[in-house]
Amino acid sequence: MNSFDYLLPPTWHTQVEEWLRQDIPSFDVGGALVGSAPSTCHILCKSPGVLAGVPFVNQVFDYLGCTVAWTDKEGEFLEASQEHRRVVATVQGPTHRLLQGERLALNLLSRCSGIATKTYQMKQVIGDWKGKLAATRKTTPGFGLVEKYGVLVGGGSTHRMDLSNAVMIKDNHLWAFGGKKSLETLVKEAKALAPHTMKVEVEVRNLEEGAAAAKAGADIIMLDNFDPIELKQTSSRLKADFPHVLLEASGGITMSSIRSFALPTIDVISQGSLTYDCKIVDFSMKVNRQ
Amino acid sequence: MNSFDYLLPPTWHTQVEEWLRQDIPSFDVGGALVGSAPSTCHILCKSPGVLAGVPFVNQVFDYLGCTVAWTDKEGEFLEASQEHRRVVATVQGPTHRLLQGERLALNLLSRCSGIATKTYQMKQVIGDWKGKLAATRKTTPGFGLVEKYGVLVGGGSTHRMDLSNAVMIKDNHLWAFGGKKSLETLVKEAKALAPHTMKVEVEVRNLEEGAAAAKAGADIIMLDNFDPIELKQTSSRLKADFPHVLLEASGGITMSSIRSFALPTIDVISQGSLTYDCKIVDFSMKVNRQ
Amino acid sequence: MNSFDYLLPPTWHTQVEEWLRQDIPSFDVGGALVGSAPSTCHILCKSPGVLAGVPFVNQVFDYLGCTVAWTDKEGEFLEASQEHRRVVATVQGPTHRLLQGERLALNLLSRCSGIATKTYQMKQVIGDWKGKLAATRKTTPGFGLVEKYGVLVGGGSTHRMDLSNAVMIKDNHLWAFGGKKSLETLVKEAKALAPHTMKVEVEVRNLEEGAAAAKAGADIIMLDNFDPIELKQTSSRLKADFPHVLLEASGGITMSSIRSFALPTIDVISQGSLTYDCKIVDFSMKVNRQ
Amino acid sequence: MNSFDYLLPPTWHTQVEEWLRQDIPSFDVGGALVGSAPSTCHILCKSPGVLAGVPFVNQVFDYLGCTVAWTDKEGEFLEASQEHRRVVATVQGPTHRLLQGERLALNLLSRCSGIATKTYQMKQVIGDWKGKLAATRKTTPGFGLVEKYGVLVGGGSTHRMDLSNAVMIKDNHLWAFGGKKSLETLVKEAKALAPHTMKVEVEVRNLEEGAAAAKAGADIIMLDNFDPIELKQTSSRLKADFPHVLLEASGGITMSSIRSFALPTIDVISQGSLTYDCKIVDFSMKVNRQ
Amino acid sequence: MNSFDYLLPPTWHTQVEEWLRQDIPSFDVGGALVGSAPSTCHILCKSPGVLAGVPFVNQVFDYLGCTVAWTDKEGEFLEASQEHRRVVATVQGPTHRLLQGERLALNLLSRCSGIATKTYQMKQVIGDWKGKLAATRKTTPGFGLVEKYGVLVGGGSTHRMDLSNAVMIKDNHLWAFGGKKSLETLVKEAKALAPHTMKVEVEVRNLEEGAAAAKAGADIIMLDNFDPIELKQTSSRLKADFPHVLLEASGGITMSSIRSFALPTIDVISQGSLTYDCKIVDFSMKVNRQ
Amino acid sequence: MNSFDYLLPPTWHTQVEEWLRQDIPSFDVGGALVGSAPSTCHILCKSPGVLAGVPFVNQVFDYLGCTVAWTDKEGEFLEASQEHRRVVATVQGPTHRLLQGERLALNLLSRCSGIATKTYQMKQVIGDWKGKLAATRKTTPGFGLVEKYGVLVGGGSTHRMDLSNAVMIKDNHLWAFGGKKSLETLVKEAKALAPHTMKVEVEVRNLEEGAAAAKAGADIIMLDNFDPIELKQTSSRLKADFPHVLLEASGGITMSSIRSFALPTIDVISQGSLTYDCKIVDFSMKVNRQ
Repeated sequence: MNSFDYLLPPTWHTQVEEWLRQDIPSFDVGGALVGSAPSTCHILCKSPGVLAGVPFVNQVFDYLGCTVAWTDKEGEFLEASQEHRRVVATVQGPTHRLLQGERLALNLLSRCSGIATKTYQMKQVIGDWKGKLAATRKTTPGFGLVEKYGVLVGGGSTHRMDLSNAVMIKDNHLWAFGGKKSLETLVKEAKALAPHTMKVEVEVRNLEEGAAAAKAGADIIMLDNFDPIELKQTSSRLKADFPHVLLEASGGITMSSIRSFALPTIDVISQGSLTYDCKIVDFSMKVNRQ
Repeated sequence: MNSFDYLLPPTWHTQVEEWLRQDIPSFDVGGALVGSAPSTCHILCKSPGVLAGVPFVNQVFDYLGCTVAWTDKEGEFLEASQEHRRVVATVQGPTHRLLQGERLALNLLSRCSGIATKTYQMKQVIGDWKGKLAATRKTTPGFGLVEKYGVLVGGGSTHRMDLSNAVMIKDNHLWAFGGKKSLETLVKEAKALAPHTMKVEVEVRNLEEGAAAAKAGADIIMLDNFDPIELKQTSSRLKADFPHVLLEASGGITMSSIRSFALPTIDVISQGSLTYDCKIVDFSMKVNRQ
Repeated sequence: MNSFDYLLPPTWHTQVEEWLRQDIPSFDVGGALVGSAPSTCHILCKSPGVLAGVPFVNQVFDYLGCTVAWTDKEGEFLEASQEHRRVVATVQGPTHRLLQGERLALNLLSRCSGIATKTYQMKQVIGDWKGKLAATRKTTPGFGLVEKYGVLVGGGSTHRMDLSNAVMIKDNHLWAFGGKKSLETLVKEAKALAPHTMKVEVEVRNLEEGAAAAKAGADIIMLDNFDPIELKQTSSRLKADFPHVLLEASGGITMSSIRSFALPTIDVISQGSLTYDCKIVDFSMKVNRQ
Repeated sequence: MNSFDYLLPPTWHTQVEEWLRQDIPSFDVGGALVGSAPSTCHILCKSPGVLAGVPFVNQVFDYLGCTVAWTDKEGEFLEASQEHRRVVATVQGPTHRLLQGERLALNLLSRCSGIATKTYQMKQVIGDWKGKLAATRKTTPGFGLVEKYGVLVGGGSTHRMDLSNAVMIKDNHLWAFGGKKSLETLVKEAKALAPHTMKVEVEVRNLEEGAAAAKAGADIIMLDNFDPIELKQTSSRLKADFPHVLLEASGGITMSSIRSFALPTIDVISQGSLTYDCKIVDFSMKVNRQ
Repeated sequence: MNSFDYLLPPTWHTQVEEWLRQDIPSFDVGGALVGSAPSTCHILCKSPGVLAGVPFVNQVFDYLGCTVAWTDKEGEFLEASQEHRRVVATVQGPTHRLLQGERLALNLLSRCSGIATKTYQMKQVIGDWKGKLAATRKTTPGFGLVEKYGVLVGGGSTHRMDLSNAVMIKDNHLWAFGGKKSLETLVKEAKALAPHTMKVEVEVRNLEEGAAAAKAGADIIMLDNFDPIELKQTSSRLKADFPHVLLEASGGITMSSIRSFALPTIDVISQGSLTYDCKIVDFSMKVNRQ
Repeated sequence: MNSFDYLLPPTWHTQVEEWLRQDIPSFDVGGALVGSAPSTCHILCKSPGVLAGVPFVNQVFDYLGCTVAWTDKEGEFLEASQEHRRVVATVQGPTHRLLQGERLALNLLSRCSGIATKTYQMKQVIGDWKGKLAATRKTTPGFGLVEKYGVLVGGGSTHRMDLSNAVMIKDNHLWAFGGKKSLETLVKEAKALAPHTMKVEVEVRNLEEGAAAAKAGADIIMLDNFDPIELKQTSSRLKADFPHVLLEASGGITMSSIRSFALPTIDVISQGSLTYDCKIVDFSMKVNRQ
């Protein structure tokens, strides 16, 4: 099933429009120089990585009246380098439109692919663990949808998309009451206020808090900043006592340490750095010299 | 002179509004849980780097009816680590508004500071070279203004902001004509069409092209993918013959090689990776437990 | 806890602006007639019902530079009639601004209160049943947030706010595959694709489907168009076998029949008509004659 | 003449876009489940009423790349019930797009048809009276255009669309001056300030006020809250003396009393409840099981 | 009564925001140069004319956090010249904000005042004629509201603001039916379709058409391209037979010929050139040198 | 090379949408009267001038689902008069759409052509002078792009489009520092802050200031309000000493005096009145009577 494309909201193309508006606020002398005669371009991959962002590139060029034909498929790992460039797509249309879309399309593709690649590599490391590797809301403002999409293509999961998507009770929520409201009370209030279609996730620091949250009705317990040994003990106990509660590990997890967090009793590992500190995959776009 | 703040367009706060709209599309149960009683938060720096993004954070919390007092100044290099956290700002306001702005503010601050830090480090490497270290248009869609701002705070320069800002003639422009239009002709057409207030930059591969472009009236010559030796030779000749033409080096330049590109005959080094492949600076925001 | 106000997204006031733009697209001669001298108005309730919509009215008049002081509280049941009008709020500001906001504010208040009243009455009928009475997505386009808010004030629950909030698998999803994909497969694919923070709800027609969905991982089972006897039997069996799965009854439920659906084994009753076929509560706004 | 469709502003489709954006703010997992294979759906009518809202449904599905073929015509009274469902339209397109548009289209159609039906029924009651049955500005914020459209399809008239459309002088305008400005003065000022293309309507409580307003140049006199006997006397006198002034009756008129207000001397009856307290017409949309 | 300011829609300031966005799409280096220290500026009038546009200038500087104090009043005729500059307002605020608003404010003021001046001069020419001198829809796209406002300040009238404001039946409407539909039929259809609050205006070429339109219910007859003698004869006949129908003269009227069109039987003269071919009034804004 | 069309930003059509929204905020009764049957219209030129604005007219009718075929070409001087009307284009489409676009299209075409004509006439006067005749930012708010486009078609140049396009240092910048910062310092700060792709222009009052600015690195010197004799002397000296600095003359230049400013040592003459005080070219649009 390769259906990530169909996840996109039907109004997403207005985002493309806004980005083009920002990039060409008034006249484009460079565009007028080349005019509207038809040209053919190739999008070239110049570094290894997972191809991700195909529907975004398509929308950029569709908006501009150009067409894109892909040689490679979204989700594929591309072997490529500066020396061994690989044609991943052919774009055709009026020359000035091709050049107006070039940079935006490449910026989308290289970032989205970079995130997919990082996610893919982490998934490789954790091997056959059955849980979900999830991103966080540590995304670039205005660009989170593209970044979460890259995570999906790389084999990860999005986590909640926004504050309206799920409730997450963290230390700040507790501290806001200066200790006058217990975790249990907060969880119960959240369950009462949220619709039954919404999950309540609770960040905890130890087994006691985890058990309290689960008893109060939490759907997800996030074990924050546990070391692997603590994590194993705590998650085993919680899983045994609350089999329907999802357990999420987060905090201080790196590419080299992630294997020891990928426990059978852990359902989800969330990792902010899936959407930051990623190297891009290098793409360029070149007009066909005929 | 610390005037980067005043560079921002007076309408920039609508961008903050749009980002908040995306992050809270309908109800915020988490916000309702904590309510509107006043709280105090601290923004903590948890990794070393240059502080950048102060006006963006201010606008986020100003929009939400909160106030921010900064302990550190934009542009300062902060020594900090996971263990030695450093309070950089205090934020006060209705608790639900503080928590609604938290993630957006941190996402802005950590990315902007990361870019400033990378720029600052490159500037350190090139020492007392007099030229400008410039970013490119390889920015995150919709986020370029913040990223270019980070470059400025780190001591770099923005390069052109968009396609309406300056003309850049590249290989694709030439190839679009299949060799039927010379570089000289293109430069002259650009100079004729562009207003006299707009510069024309030309990307060249060798001395001949550079000289042709300069003779045709180019304001900036970009020497693309030259090795340091070629760069020295070519730029010396061009500078001698066309002292008023700015020379820009670009392509294949890294942190370790940049010193050999920072020649007296080079006015600008542009570096796409200033705005990608940057590590963020780590910040968090915590409610004061009273 | 009366925190519904804090549920509203911080950008909601732009909706008020858009509604005022639609209502005064060019000049307002009526406004110019009365000018900007300060006036005092009263908002009067003229029919019985639950007061709901206070924050919306506040935002309308706040946008227009007026202030509102409420005599009655959101959520209160007001005894009032055409003959016994009741002052619920006093509004002060420039006269033309008061009259420009009058109709919009009343339209918001009367509809929101009407929905709260209907919800409140249904809640009265079902007495001390512990489940949630929820609305559906059968809302007025562009006005759903206000309508769901009214449901909350009346004692109900919102259900999912939008398609990005939770997954609901219905007959149409199955029929789209012409019987070639089983309910179990669809539920499993949904669980795999959705983030772990998102619930998957499945609409079923009988016990077999309900059990299949629950086994496949559904978080919520919606028992659609069951009569009370079937509902009791099916929900008892499902609750016994899958205690962590929420059971929702929907379809063909009316004010007079709802008691027999409010079973201990049912967690949620959802009712589209909470947000349509509601009588408004009648309000007017009158300038103080001094 | 069935030209209501052509009344719609050419930019109306942006409203559809905004409603879809609100309903699918980020990813749509349900849509991704079913994918983009083509499906055929039927829109079914399940309760009796006047069909209204065809162009709105068309715009929803047109935006989503689907096509609609109608079996019934806008304005027709449909006999239908829960048991005798009636196919009114066939919709074809990519499955995920069909399901994304389903709820929005049905919400539009059921509300618009409900208003048309109520208007139609009132028109039936008043029989062959020659005047106009008009709505008011008591519409749902942001949804007035659809509601007024439903009134037109049902045989009614829209009244003024917004504050920029016509001037209406009411008690609040007079009270704003605390009795220091006469009705005559206000009407004259309105006639002077408004363009000659704009009508001035005045709400009056008795014959004296009506005559004063007419003499001062009012185009329309609204007789507010008159009982039928007073209305007959006052309107006869005003019509005799000011044959070119339109007379509008409003206030306290119900389905059962409206006949006695539908006098030959009355040109317009306006009725706020045409756009509220309407029952919807029940529609659903089902994928064809092939 | 000087209430034109109160005619403006309460959302008008978003127009100012959009214009500022267009004028400063990314960074403003000039603004950063001068910084945010407070300055005082004077707006100087440098050519004679009627001052108009005060609320627009106020909104520009209010948006930018500056304040404006006016020495002269909207609607006053200012004697001024290049040599005898006249201070009309003092503006105070952060220097970069003052300079960012300068050009937009002056562009608004000079154009609005130019239109007010032309209108004022035409009114002087026609002396004590009681009719209205009206503009048309021949306005600058996106700027019509400001231009119509200038007409009001100069003593003129706006005519209809947009196509939704009033119906105007012209030659093109008739020609669209290729002669198969009579003027009477069209007028009757318009009266039936339009709400009773909307006027129907008909453009006619001779007495016969005028009489036909009036009989069919037209509220306004526009006598298009009549010479003064024809106009006198035709308008006298129509006024005698249809005293409640407004008569509007239009077409081929100039500053020098307008007196002969300003007949007692004519209610309105409309003049497209009130909003084009106007000389601006010259203003500049200068920072106080202290 | 006739490539002005390709200068337009790809998102420009949203401007057309906004203008149509303003002109038809709710229903269009006139449009409904004529319906959607196909019609053919002609756009007629009724006064002499340069045809300009073709792409804007095309976008208006394209948005409305109509097609335009031009008989004359953008940039051509059209001989036409009230008596000798000239068909410049044929427009086809649904009748109500044609009439909805008519006024907007004509308002665009007549203003754009008027500006092109004035520019063309000034170019005729200055004969074979090699410099650029440039507009300023004295444009109609929101309409500057169309106006600058008209200047281009008439043979002129746009000058900077907005404050983000180039830096211009004027008297107000100096006065803001009350004499405490020299022109040289300001120019140097601007060069440091602006990207190397951006020019810095300085307005000067005499040779000394000009030389100081040029030495400090100004790219363009604007000689403001010089008489022709001073201009000749000063520009000769500056050109001799700073051959790479562009010299711009501005202020007090009229159609009759411009020849004496068009000196070989002057590169640019800028003229605010190119975009104001222009007579429009008169166009109308008529439905074909078949």
